[in-house]
Amino acid sequence: MAVPFFSSTFASSFSFFHPAPKLKLCSNHLLRCTAPFSAGLEAGVFLSVGAHVIPHPDKIEKGGEDAYLVSSHRGGVIAVADGVSGWAEKDVDPALFSRDLMANASAFLQDQQVNYEPRILIQKAHSATSSVGSATAVVAMLERNGILKIANVGDCGVRIIRKGQIVFATSPQEHYFDCPYQLSSEAVGQTFVDATVMTVELMEEDTIVMGTDGLFDNVFDREIVSVVGSCRNVLDSAKELAKIAHDHSLDSNFDSPYSQEARTHGIDVPWWKKIMGMKLTGGKRDDITVIVAEVKSSFIS
Amino acid sequence: MAVPFFSSTFASSFSFFHPAPKLKLCSNHLLRCTAPFSAGLEAGVFLSVGAHVIPHPDKIEKGGEDAYLVSSHRGGVIAVADGVSGWAEKDVDPALFSRDLMANASAFLQDQQVNYEPRILIQKAHSATSSVGSATAVVAMLERNGILKIANVGDCGVRIIRKGQIVFATSPQEHYFDCPYQLSSEAVGQTFVDATVMTVELMEEDTIVMGTDGLFDNVFDREIVSVVGSCRNVLDSAKELAKIAHDHSLDSNFDSPYSQEARTHGIDVPWWKKIMGMKLTGGKRDDITVIVAEVKSSFIS
Repeated sequence: MAVPFFSSTFASSFSFFHPAPKLKLCSNHLLRCTAPFSAGLEAGVFLSVGAHVIPHPDKIEKGGEDAYLVSSHRGGVIAVADGVSGWAEKDVDPALFSRDLMANASAFLQDQQVNYEPRILIQKAHSATSSVGSATAVVAMLERNGILKIANVGDCGVRIIRKGQIVFATSPQEHYFDCPYQLSSEAVGQTFVDATVMTVELMEEDTIVMGTDGLFDNVFDREIVSVVGSCRNVLDSAKELAKIAHDHSLDSNFDSPYSQEARTHGIDVPWWKKIMGMKLTGGKRDDITVIVAEVKSSFIS
Repeated sequence: MAVPFFSSTFASSFSFFHPAPKLKLCSNHLLRCTAPFSAGLEAGVFLSVGAHVIPHPDKIEKGGEDAYLVSSHRGGVIAVADGVSGWAEKDVDPALFSRDLMANASAFLQDQQVNYEPRILIQKAHSATSSVGSATAVVAMLERNGILKIANVGDCGVRIIRKGQIVFATSPQEHYFDCPYQLSSEAVGQTFVDATVMTVELMEEDTIVMGTDGLFDNVFDREIVSVVGSCRNVLDSAKELAKIAHDHSLDSNFDSPYSQEARTHGIDVPWWKKIMGMKLTGGKRDDITVIVAEVKSSFIS
């Protein structure tokens, strides 16, 4: 059923990779992966994509340490990577690895050995990444027949919303709290072998929300559903979700997904505050990358 | 890669369907889906399965309204169905539909048109179900190459645990709080078309936990991981998870997944209790069905 409909040259010029934006707070992208059809091709689905990034407040100048990729190849490809910030303590810029990884993923999209398998794309991109550092990453590749293939390493995430509710959600992989599985320049890190690999059968009008943990640590799934349901288009959804994540990340009173998770791991306020009824709250200050993609149907005229 | 290795007769005699147990509180089943090999067959995976049921306290005599299915067909098949209890108000036994559905699913396991696709199995089983009523259901079918195919209608669930953490979880489908998507004898219900269809690439030693909402409404994912990690085998895990779910379901002070979900939907104690610091708590009394399956590798001697 899957019919690649872009010529090699066209897809290559259309797919692109985004480092986090430099010298501005936000970057907006409304990416319509539309393309001319040739009569005789089968009908299929494609993605209408919006992406938005808000860097960590302390990293605005450098554009944060997330990177992402959007391509119209086949049904559409979306991916995000989150540079692990701990590398800064070793005088390594954590942004380099994630950007390098996404740039390499972009380069291998049409590789024959990759064969449109997200896990193999991660393998190839990781192998080609020469920067020192590490990153979490998730890659989702849509076939024209509606099959979405996902490979996930770490705590980036994907939600799929159908008719106003989440019908699919990835689960984060962590070694321990706040230490996610990560692709690394070092041998101790994870590889494509550790990726969770899944497929989901998508339907027209399904919405995919992909993000770094800056989104999912600060915004509840029910909020994601509400925002996607109320926004006019995918770009508005991405912007609004990033804004809410940003606002929550700075709100020390917000009982965020992150603070709730911390408490389940025994991280909380001191006992004398607890007996006064207090608890650990607050969002997580982080780079926030949000990609929202809607599944559209294309028919042959 | 997938190699069906049972003859039609053998699989037919081995696969079976379980109504909820009658006249006893618990039913235990340790189901080792082992089978003789023929030299020359490819290596593959299979499931070691344990199942345990604890009916709703008020429905012990009739064995509750859940039903489940375990089969060694190909890599292994597991499924649960939960009869929607509201039918009792119409003098319909809610157990009939779920049992009928699982019995029919069992009968169609090797159907050519089903072609080992869980969504089509649901379609066929639903069409063949003549009982009045409705049920939520989830079906998971393992290929010998490790691909687990899942189709889910409603709020039964699946968790996959790898190296001590959940790497995959289904999301429940609901019309509104406590009203799940359901396969029904009535035209207003859902069908196989509404199923969420997914695949996950499993690895040896992965553990699948499948259950009705009686499990997931009363037991947190972190508890599921902990129990699976500490039990000797899949049957012990299933029994322990069902017991914990049962205990929590009767504990009015336990802040269960169900009570947390209720509060997010605005269902809580009256305002005058709230200002005294009280909140809605408690488990959900329900039929509890738990299937735990471990992925084993088989090699040709």
